[in-house]
Amino acid sequence: MADVNCNALGRQVPESYRPFEHPEIQSAPTFIPEAYRNTQAIDKVRPRIEDAIEHCGLVDGDTISFHHGLRNGDQVLQQVMRAIIDMGFSNLILAPTSLFPCQIPIILEAIDKGVITRIRGGSVRGELGQWIVSGKLNSIYEARSHSGRCADIETGQLPIDVAFCAASSSDRFGNCNGWHGKPNSMFGILSFMAPDAKFAKKGFVVVTDTLVPGINDFMGIGMQHATDVVVVDSIGDNHGLDSGETVIQHIAPERLEALSYLVEVIRALRITDRKPCVQLGSGMGLAGINYLAEAGIDIDMMIGGVTKDLIAAVNAGIVTRLFNGQCFDRVSAITLKNQWSFTTPMDMFQYGSPYRAPVTGLLDVGLLGAIEIDRQFDVNVSSFSNGIPAKAIGGHTDVARGAGVTIVQAPLHRKAYPIIRERVTTLSTPGRYFVDFIMTPNGMIVNDTAFNTNADRNHVLSKELINKGVPFLSMDEAIALAKTNASEFLQPVLPQFGDKIVGVVKYLDGSVLDSIYEITNLDEL
Amino acid sequence: MADVNCNALGRQVPESYRPFEHPEIQSAPTFIPEAYRNTQAIDKVRPRIEDAIEHCGLVDGDTISFHHGLRNGDQVLQQVMRAIIDMGFSNLILAPTSLFPCQIPIILEAIDKGVITRIRGGSVRGELGQWIVSGKLNSIYEARSHSGRCADIETGQLPIDVAFCAASSSDRFGNCNGWHGKPNSMFGILSFMAPDAKFAKKGFVVVTDTLVPGINDFMGIGMQHATDVVVVDSIGDNHGLDSGETVIQHIAPERLEALSYLVEVIRALRITDRKPCVQLGSGMGLAGINYLAEAGIDIDMMIGGVTKDLIAAVNAGIVTRLFNGQCFDRVSAITLKNQWSFTTPMDMFQYGSPYRAPVTGLLDVGLLGAIEIDRQFDVNVSSFSNGIPAKAIGGHTDVARGAGVTIVQAPLHRKAYPIIRERVTTLSTPGRYFVDFIMTPNGMIVNDTAFNTNADRNHVLSKELINKGVPFLSMDEAIALAKTNASEFLQPVLPQFGDKIVGVVKYLDGSVLDSIYEITNLDEL
Repeated sequence: MADVNCNALGRQVPESYRPFEHPEIQSAPTFIPEAYRNTQAIDKVRPRIEDAIEHCGLVDGDTISFHHGLRNGDQVLQQVMRAIIDMGFSNLILAPTSLFPCQIPIILEAIDKGVITRIRGGSVRGELGQWIVSGKLNSIYEARSHSGRCADIETGQLPIDVAFCAASSSDRFGNCNGWHGKPNSMFGILSFMAPDAKFAKKGFVVVTDTLVPGINDFMGIGMQHATDVVVVDSIGDNHGLDSGETVIQHIAPERLEALSYLVEVIRALRITDRKPCVQLGSGMGLAGINYLAEAGIDIDMMIGGVTKDLIAAVNAGIVTRLFNGQCFDRVSAITLKNQWSFTTPMDMFQYGSPYRAPVTGLLDVGLLGAIEIDRQFDVNVSSFSNGIPAKAIGGHTDVARGAGVTIVQAPLHRKAYPIIRERVTTLSTPGRYFVDFIMTPNGMIVNDTAFNTNADRNHVLSKELINKGVPFLSMDEAIALAKTNASEFLQPVLPQFGDKIVGVVKYLDGSVLDSIYEITNLDEL
Repeated sequence: MADVNCNALGRQVPESYRPFEHPEIQSAPTFIPEAYRNTQAIDKVRPRIEDAIEHCGLVDGDTISFHHGLRNGDQVLQQVMRAIIDMGFSNLILAPTSLFPCQIPIILEAIDKGVITRIRGGSVRGELGQWIVSGKLNSIYEARSHSGRCADIETGQLPIDVAFCAASSSDRFGNCNGWHGKPNSMFGILSFMAPDAKFAKKGFVVVTDTLVPGINDFMGIGMQHATDVVVVDSIGDNHGLDSGETVIQHIAPERLEALSYLVEVIRALRITDRKPCVQLGSGMGLAGINYLAEAGIDIDMMIGGVTKDLIAAVNAGIVTRLFNGQCFDRVSAITLKNQWSFTTPMDMFQYGSPYRAPVTGLLDVGLLGAIEIDRQFDVNVSSFSNGIPAKAIGGHTDVARGAGVTIVQAPLHRKAYPIIRERVTTLSTPGRYFVDFIMTPNGMIVNDTAFNTNADRNHVLSKELINKGVPFLSMDEAIALAKTNASEFLQPVLPQFGDKIVGVVKYLDGSVLDSIYEITNLDEL
């Protein structure tokens, strides 16, 4: 007889194996957060937000998170923060994917009352940026790109305790998404909460305004991550998706003209066995698609920020496939739910993760915007030239790092502010390594410096583009011209920076690219 | 001035933060297998299978895996195994999701030559089972349910070195799926390799017969997991999906009649605020859907094994939603690719994971088959009554554990073999805890024993069903009747079990439910 043991079922088991003891499962792997281990599909609906907060065991000092799927139409952060303020919490850390102006009043109230004492973004927009550089927060604000936030969460550099997830539909188990529900609540793909869903330690609270009676589909975040479901009257209004930065409007003709250089860049890449993959950015860059179409350049794949313009480009046959990480307008949020034939859903782990082959790495060309670009090709997309960190980094670093050819487009100056300049106010993308060309209405600038591993290729490409009639400037010329042009405008009051560091901008690996300093003459700006 | 350091970009960083040093990313979290860390979207196409094997660094003693998306039409395992045999490897461990008869000749050759010396399934079918109980393998075969395999991989109890993944389409980066490609190669959803993709230590080799020129979509396994892509002439033939166990055929009328009891069970559950969720199994149980339809019971969600019959039920309006973990016939494999409006893709982590809320837990009723059921309500679905482990466990344990009401349906006897009996030949599902009712053509049997935490509910339900005219038997009556009926058939030669343990059946947590013994009179059976 072999060496055997008897298990709890009365059956024999070889000595080298562990005998069955009990049907309950005990040994969940530790990388699954404790809150989700060994859970069952049970009804998780709580009567009020307060009940969910209590159920998660939120305590003072914890980190809470929100996503910006509803952009400037969100009302979930406001309702949760109202509850948190009224419940008397203090000293919480806010770690959103991105913040929008509609959320600022309640956040300022929470800061004022000591409920929120630290912001670890994502990005902030608008007035909150002014507040940060006023120095009143007494903690260091952290700005991150989309993938940087994701990476900081999965490496433990940004631990999340409780995530609050706006969802336009959920079932009672917490299977939730942004694809179904009320016409004004749908926001489309729910990609930004993927890291929070996977790693939030104490709880993942689904906040929805449509509780489906049966089972919801899984094309969002599944019940294996959800700990609580709360039904509210409204999660927000998806008309707020169409916020300023994603709309093509009022573009000066000479800036549109510069986009035509894109055609020559793509031609010069001589991609013959397939169609190129291109990211044109969320704002003005999208206008570039018209130049490509006119030149007969069809696109295999675009990453977005999906908009009605991108969907139109697919329907026109110009673009084959959209990788969808976010819906940038109401039309796409409502219409894309079953369009998986041309849209591929993509979460933030897939988009630009620094730790595994990212989708941004599929791009032949990535076209990005900038607030400022400096002599080193480093880029500022987070602070205005007056020093106030009030713009979103978004996927800027992620695309800059991933794309085969990275082009940053900007005018030489915006009124009195030189945009191409000696030194950017805040360095948010280390463009010296990643930016291959700058595209201005006055011509292109090539990065063939030693920092850039593609310097030789860029040099050759620039020669070919010049032969095709694309105007080029040297960096010296660009900086000088930007300065001259800007000087014709009424000079603004310059910010006076204090000694106090009020914020940092983090790189994809969690290291710090630059600091944001207190501004002492804020009321003069 | 605050305490600051200068980073590699010449920018100041607060002392409490790590300064940016270098654009390359070094610090990937350790839960990402080394083979995939810090990878980029690069061309991974290798000329031949042998090149991919070499690139992965496969060595003697390693564990290799395959999935059974193409079921009995697979030709990928055969081609990879041919290469592995010819390359002279030895002592490898085969850890498939499931094995099919078409693969047996090459596996037997590999075993014969010492290339494969251990099988850690998944399940085996047919002749390979006979070979295992012949005792020639000199190692212990391991049988697992779908979710048990998944759980053993993620807990490290079944480490995979190199996974070979059949895919009907892939791009050069390894974005692959079973949805696109040649009409005879598509096999549908690629769910079974999710654990291998996430945890294979040395490599994940995509084997495809359609290399798409541009970017493939991501509704399968993404490039972040793939290390190699190999293009072969054919990955197989999806006509092989329609293999015996998934086809409704030759069902005795009295067994169909028993399915009508389902109607009364579901009615007795009094689900009023929504439609019920039901799993009817892959084979005969599907016929039960007709009884439900006739009784006016619509189903909210079914889990499958999607077949053309299930799709028809959706189109007929009887079923709202299918959770799709596997395509069980060619029609569903070819047609479901863009039907996400009613099919929800589901990988093996979502299906029945013991460590987080599983989809099987959404079932109000789970109807399962059985080879044998014993007095304790324990079930055998892996070995025939002659002791040969030649049937697949599939998701049996997973559904039995998850469903609200678990019903096992079987005849009292199959010819000379009593099916309801004192003791099952091999215990593969600890039904004493999970099975609530047995459904036979002679009536139902209730599990109201102390092992079952639903004993009281089951007792009440049985009283109600009896009142509705559903016949019931006691376990004593069922065992006696099964024995009597079976005795009228020519009695088979019984297996003679030796002392040697040749296999084990594992529970979802990796513990052992039962052992499989050597059979010494195999040629008489």
